[in-house]
Amino acid sequence: MAAWGARLAGVRGVLLDISGVLYDSGEGGGKPIAGSVDAVARLKRSGLKVRFCTNESQKSRSRLVGELRSLGFNIHEGEVTAPPPAACQLLKERGLRPHLLVHDEVRSEFDQVDTSDPNCVVIADAGEGFSYQNMNKAFQVLMGLDTPVLISLGQGRYYKVTSGLMLDVGGYMKALEYACGVEAEVVGKPSPEFFKSALQEMGVEACQAQ
Amino acid sequence: MAAWGARLAGVRGVLLDISGVLYDSGEGGGKPIAGSVDAVARLKRSGLKVRFCTNESQKSRSRLVGELRSLGFNIHEGEVTAPPPAACQLLKERGLRPHLLVHDEVRSEFDQVDTSDPNCVVIADAGEGFSYQNMNKAFQVLMGLDTPVLISLGQGRYYKVTSGLMLDVGGYMKALEYACGVEAEVVGKPSPEFFKSALQEMGVEACQAQ
Repeated sequence: MAAWGARLAGVRGVLLDISGVLYDSGEGGGKPIAGSVDAVARLKRSGLKVRFCTNESQKSRSRLVGELRSLGFNIHEGEVTAPPPAACQLLKERGLRPHLLVHDEVRSEFDQVDTSDPNCVVIADAGEGFSYQNMNKAFQVLMGLDTPVLISLGQGRYYKVTSGLMLDVGGYMKALEYACGVEAEVVGKPSPEFFKSALQEMGVEACQAQ
Repeated sequence: MAAWGARLAGVRGVLLDISGVLYDSGEGGGKPIAGSVDAVARLKRSGLKVRFCTNESQKSRSRLVGELRSLGFNIHEGEVTAPPPAACQLLKERGLRPHLLVHDEVRSEFDQVDTSDPNCVVIADAGEGFSYQNMNKAFQVLMGLDTPVLISLGQGRYYKVTSGLMLDVGGYMKALEYACGVEAEVVGKPSPEFFKSALQEMGVEACQAQ
């Protein structure tokens, strides 16, 4: 802890990535990366504020946290900054009512959001939900708006699963951008706003975070 | 015919668009634009070579021609330059074996093309065929190639049908371009190669065409 103490002088909070840092996702819930369960426990014991920051948008936070807890991590849902809650905050601040093109798993994250008479479109990695019909509906909603607003939860090109590479949300974001002549606002890493919202939730300034 | 004669001095062939020029497409086969049936007949009687040039890629040429003939047009399948046959010629010239992501209606246009062990991807307006699964398969084929080649039949943003606006192939082309880091080759208008192939089929130089 002495070495940590020196490195963390002036630091009040720590942001941690999840996938590829705490654990590798995969079939059966994935597996922890060596030493990470203990590292999280030690950070928390040290009195530092800890927040987990992920671009995961195919799983709800509760499912993700459930999987991590079953792997031994000391983690709670309220400690996770993920694109859906950050998007909800942005929607609320700007009075936006989204048409949602998201995975069924994360739809519940938007339960508190008014989705009547949409004045924007939110897309996330919808997987099989990226049907022509669903894409066309999102396109039609955008084309029907005087000022089309497209919010994308991440802009990944693809990701890897055990069976191979999978198209991520980024391509579908580009498709709607091109068809509608708009530029998407990206919520999630590497957007500075995303990190700022994580810091805000932690109650720590950027200069006090690691 | 005198006025035409003056305007067409030195001209040996005429390229005609189809949709929006000869007829308006729509439910029940569409309807001819006033005067167009007679205009085509007169052009043909004049001894000029006539060729029809369309970006239609949801219907086979035989179906399109059948619809036009039933509207009274003097038109034959061999007189139509459409993206699928132009793509077939390009594939043949370059020894490309496509993975096809196209509408079922136009699949027959590729009957003579070797699609085994694909070394490129051809996409066209596949409509409902643009499922996540089909897009992901096209993506995986491209990512598996040392030199990914993506050929897109048109690059339209959207088109209009009686029920509203519909996403065209262009957005899906952009999605694959972004995900794979490639630039698509577009077959169809406004590509110069497309017009050149129409002229070649008509046996007329560009300076002799109208």
